[in-house]
Amino acid sequence: MSDARPIGVFDSGVGGLTVIAALTRILPHEDIVYFGDTARVPYGTKSKETVTRFSVENIEFLMRKNVKLVIVACNTASSLSLDFLKRCFRVPILGVIDPGAKCAVSSTRNNRVGIIGTSATISSGAYDKAIKKINPRISVFGQSCPLFVPLAEEGWFNKSFTKDIAAFYLKPLKDRMIDTLILGCTHYPLMRDVIQAVMGKNVLLVDSAKEVAKEARIILDSSGLLKESHGVGRHCFFVSDEPGRFVKTARLFLRKRITCARKAV
Amino acid sequence: MSDARPIGVFDSGVGGLTVIAALTRILPHEDIVYFGDTARVPYGTKSKETVTRFSVENIEFLMRKNVKLVIVACNTASSLSLDFLKRCFRVPILGVIDPGAKCAVSSTRNNRVGIIGTSATISSGAYDKAIKKINPRISVFGQSCPLFVPLAEEGWFNKSFTKDIAAFYLKPLKDRMIDTLILGCTHYPLMRDVIQAVMGKNVLLVDSAKEVAKEARIILDSSGLLKESHGVGRHCFFVSDEPGRFVKTARLFLRKRITCARKAV
Repeated sequence: MSDARPIGVFDSGVGGLTVIAALTRILPHEDIVYFGDTARVPYGTKSKETVTRFSVENIEFLMRKNVKLVIVACNTASSLSLDFLKRCFRVPILGVIDPGAKCAVSSTRNNRVGIIGTSATISSGAYDKAIKKINPRISVFGQSCPLFVPLAEEGWFNKSFTKDIAAFYLKPLKDRMIDTLILGCTHYPLMRDVIQAVMGKNVLLVDSAKEVAKEARIILDSSGLLKESHGVGRHCFFVSDEPGRFVKTARLFLRKRITCARKAV
Repeated sequence: MSDARPIGVFDSGVGGLTVIAALTRILPHEDIVYFGDTARVPYGTKSKETVTRFSVENIEFLMRKNVKLVIVACNTASSLSLDFLKRCFRVPILGVIDPGAKCAVSSTRNNRVGIIGTSATISSGAYDKAIKKINPRISVFGQSCPLFVPLAEEGWFNKSFTKDIAAFYLKPLKDRMIDTLILGCTHYPLMRDVIQAVMGKNVLLVDSAKEVAKEARIILDSSGLLKESHGVGRHCFFVSDEPGRFVKTARLFLRKRITCARKAV
């Protein structure tokens, strides 16, 4: 059995391209339709009701593209809206929280895990609940880092003030002696070097994008939904604002040029 | 002649409350209806088409509240969309660009003016055009400062890295020897102290919010549209997302609590 329909991925904007990069490595033959809600980005400062409404609209768009699986690449939408979305749609829907949480649980040695993300992701407690459900003895410490996204989008990875800001945000987590840190926002892998430098080399950084791609493969494989092909998959990119800025920022995430982003209508 | 209808003010979010603060001082008797598009904030990274579409919807909301004048408090929307909005609606519409530009023109002594704002405001060249229209001999230098809004919203006005970031952004303007700097984003007056410290005390900072409030008084007065009353005006606040975060952040801008923000439906 095989299924040639594309995988649908949505994010509040450009950050979800980290998931596309991971999918490209792990499921290279699959076609992908990406939707970035660049007209309404960011989600991380907005309410559950609003993020859920936007997410429903985004999945409705992907459904019109006949997708076989939806990946909610946005940590905020996964944190606030996943349960509701799963009840709304028949297609399998995968968020980034559970895969990231599972990886952290299997990685920590001292049972002390940190999470960084948007204000909405952190205050939702979603990672906390997902980790405690697997192992209630793990202590979880959250920290929102609102400056990390604009710093990443400026491309300021090595500036001294970037390190100062990272040190300021991460100090409470260092003080808690965590040995595992979940990068709970799709932009944060871009900040990996400075985060690792601040936390020290003994702290393992978990990238949810990679974990969700692995889980997508397991789900498709177990349901006979993998595409049978040896060719490279086709990737289509849609955005809700004009694509110019998206295409420009995309290079930061994919390390290559996107040529075919279109405005969704 | 007098007119008891309210003044309508909209912004992409909470920043336009700097205009409310100025209106409260300059037109204390007037009723005001404020709309903050908190579900879709920010506008400063988005395209002209999208910002214009959002702005039309925002004014349609204000029109349903029977406003006598609309103030576009958002610098980005004023920069990208004002001409179109003026053609769409019969009510007088006032943006923040012209008032800020006029003040800068009358203030500069060496004919070298700087502007800081969002990426969209700066790349639109709107302040530049407005200034050159009054005095083409003035040189205008723009700089976008994307980190200023999240720094202001974190309340990090006095951190050493805030000063480092301000110094980094403002260096090109210092090098150009400007003597007047327009704070071309409603959040930036919150950063006034650090900006003034970096620029030096001889550089005059122009706050568009104050200037637009003065111009609103002139327009209402000259058209016989002022409200005849000695009571304090009523202010109503509407937002497109849940009001919780708006009410919290509002204190930074108004230095008092908003008690009556409602979600617009």
